[in-house]
Amino acid sequence: MPPTAHSVQALVHIQEWLQGDLEQVETRMRAIPLTFEPLKTAVDHLLRAGGKRIRPMLVLLTGRLYREADEAMIALAAAVEMLHTATLVHDDLIDGSLLRRGIPTLNAIWTPAATVLTGDYLFAYAASLAAQTENVRVMAIFARTLMTICEGELRQQFGDRAAMLDREDYFRRIYAKTAAMFELATEAAAVLARAPEPQVEALRRYGVDLGMAFQIMDDILDFTGEAQVLGKPVGNDLRQGLITLPVLFYLEEHPGDPVIDRILAGSSGDEDLIREAVERVRNSKAIAQARAEAEAFIRRSQSYLENLPEGPAREALRFLGELVLRRDH
Amino acid sequence: MPPTAHSVQALVHIQEWLQGDLEQVETRMRAIPLTFEPLKTAVDHLLRAGGKRIRPMLVLLTGRLYREADEAMIALAAAVEMLHTATLVHDDLIDGSLLRRGIPTLNAIWTPAATVLTGDYLFAYAASLAAQTENVRVMAIFARTLMTICEGELRQQFGDRAAMLDREDYFRRIYAKTAAMFELATEAAAVLARAPEPQVEALRRYGVDLGMAFQIMDDILDFTGEAQVLGKPVGNDLRQGLITLPVLFYLEEHPGDPVIDRILAGSSGDEDLIREAVERVRNSKAIAQARAEAEAFIRRSQSYLENLPEGPAREALRFLGELVLRRDH
Repeated sequence: MPPTAHSVQALVHIQEWLQGDLEQVETRMRAIPLTFEPLKTAVDHLLRAGGKRIRPMLVLLTGRLYREADEAMIALAAAVEMLHTATLVHDDLIDGSLLRRGIPTLNAIWTPAATVLTGDYLFAYAASLAAQTENVRVMAIFARTLMTICEGELRQQFGDRAAMLDREDYFRRIYAKTAAMFELATEAAAVLARAPEPQVEALRRYGVDLGMAFQIMDDILDFTGEAQVLGKPVGNDLRQGLITLPVLFYLEEHPGDPVIDRILAGSSGDEDLIREAVERVRNSKAIAQARAEAEAFIRRSQSYLENLPEGPAREALRFLGELVLRRDH
Repeated sequence: MPPTAHSVQALVHIQEWLQGDLEQVETRMRAIPLTFEPLKTAVDHLLRAGGKRIRPMLVLLTGRLYREADEAMIALAAAVEMLHTATLVHDDLIDGSLLRRGIPTLNAIWTPAATVLTGDYLFAYAASLAAQTENVRVMAIFARTLMTICEGELRQQFGDRAAMLDREDYFRRIYAKTAAMFELATEAAAVLARAPEPQVEALRRYGVDLGMAFQIMDDILDFTGEAQVLGKPVGNDLRQGLITLPVLFYLEEHPGDPVIDRILAGSSGDEDLIREAVERVRNSKAIAQARAEAEAFIRRSQSYLENLPEGPAREALRFLGELVLRRDH
């Protein structure tokens, strides 16, 4: 499903609707009290690289279910995106990635030590933005989310390789990697907007399921995407020895596939092998099966919206799910 | 000045007085909600390694000026020590240090990726403990402190080498490296204990000056200490190309000293040169001059205690300064 004229237009509508808020979020993110010039330049570079800003949009749309954005909601949206940016910086170091969003990573242009410290600084700035919400519960959710993300990443890096062939393990990994941050965005925004508790819970679950689908689509794109549109090479996950949902479905149909087996056995540095594996998975029905899983998560996420206040914010949240299914980068 | 029987005894008194609280702090630190076994083991290893626990003592003593420790104060003391532990993990990675407190660093026994992530996890856990204070201002101080520490470390790693020969630059570095965390301990504890604002400010300044002296003594011990007592080799700072106060004083007396010059020019990997430099500084009057600076900070820190509530907590805080001047590790 390519993006349709309709879907692109609807995204433009959402962005126009939120434009004033999103600009305030950008301003807040860039208001880093940095005096050390090289770090300032590096952080500017990171923030200018942009990204989809889907996490701040989730915060703002959730807030708009209940009220206009205030200073605290802007701070929360900036905090979530800053936390996301900080995790990217350390991820790129850990993976040794040299490209992100089509531009060189900090890791590629700087030393590991600078990368560690810049990531730490951005964590601290995210915490400082979270503190600007002046909401203790929001801050506790923040801390819990970062713990989930770190433990998940450690599991992924150092956990039992055999466990990776288990679908439950995959879902646990992508929850920690992506869905937990979406959950943070919607749950914390609902708390801050003083939503009734059952609605906080519904929005929290909405965030989790949207995030699960978002990561499944990301994992599909690692096989079906175009390197130029993605801003990074395809087959990256296999190259890092990472088994994702398309591979799990592929292996169900082709147990003991020799190409995948060799990669699992440690030949993830062999580029011909990676290319061949990407071809095999891309041309199998595993892609459609994985997409069906993503769609199931989106449908469930949308079901959580049913009892929320009607209006454009709810429509936009519903529509974000459709956009996730139409991702091409 | 070696530790006297009197000073050791007084420290024992303070520790006995705080024992119940300190045990609660340890329990709180170890109550990490970890399910991933290798990480759990690594964190246990780190926490068992101990340390002086001076930062939790500062929190508890500051709190005791006003009231008995409650759950929030215990959480703050644990949060400060956890933040300190997290920074040590990343520091050891950045410095490539293999020993800390006489035992192998995480960096030495594990991979850089695991070390980055474990440090991140501990930052998150520190933030979670800070959130348990349920005090927004405390959390904001926390975030600000971590930003100060990271920016200082980046400056130290990547700043202008020539600036290192400037004494103001040295003081700025040790503020970020050490004194900011002491400041966090006393300021946040005073806020949590609902101290009157002028006393919060006095305690904040006390923390800064005590921390400055603590770091100067640390920098002196890097020349005069015994590797076995320190739990790490002497001359470590020079080995990392780091200029500290004893060297600055030494260079005032011996401008253009050829041994120091060669180290500054990049020969910090030459062990014979390091040994010779350590000998020269150790046998010069730079050590006494640096110690006099530390003493001046301690005297000023004690002056901030004058208008605080009288009693054993204030006596203990005053005495901590004396102990800092008598550090041998």
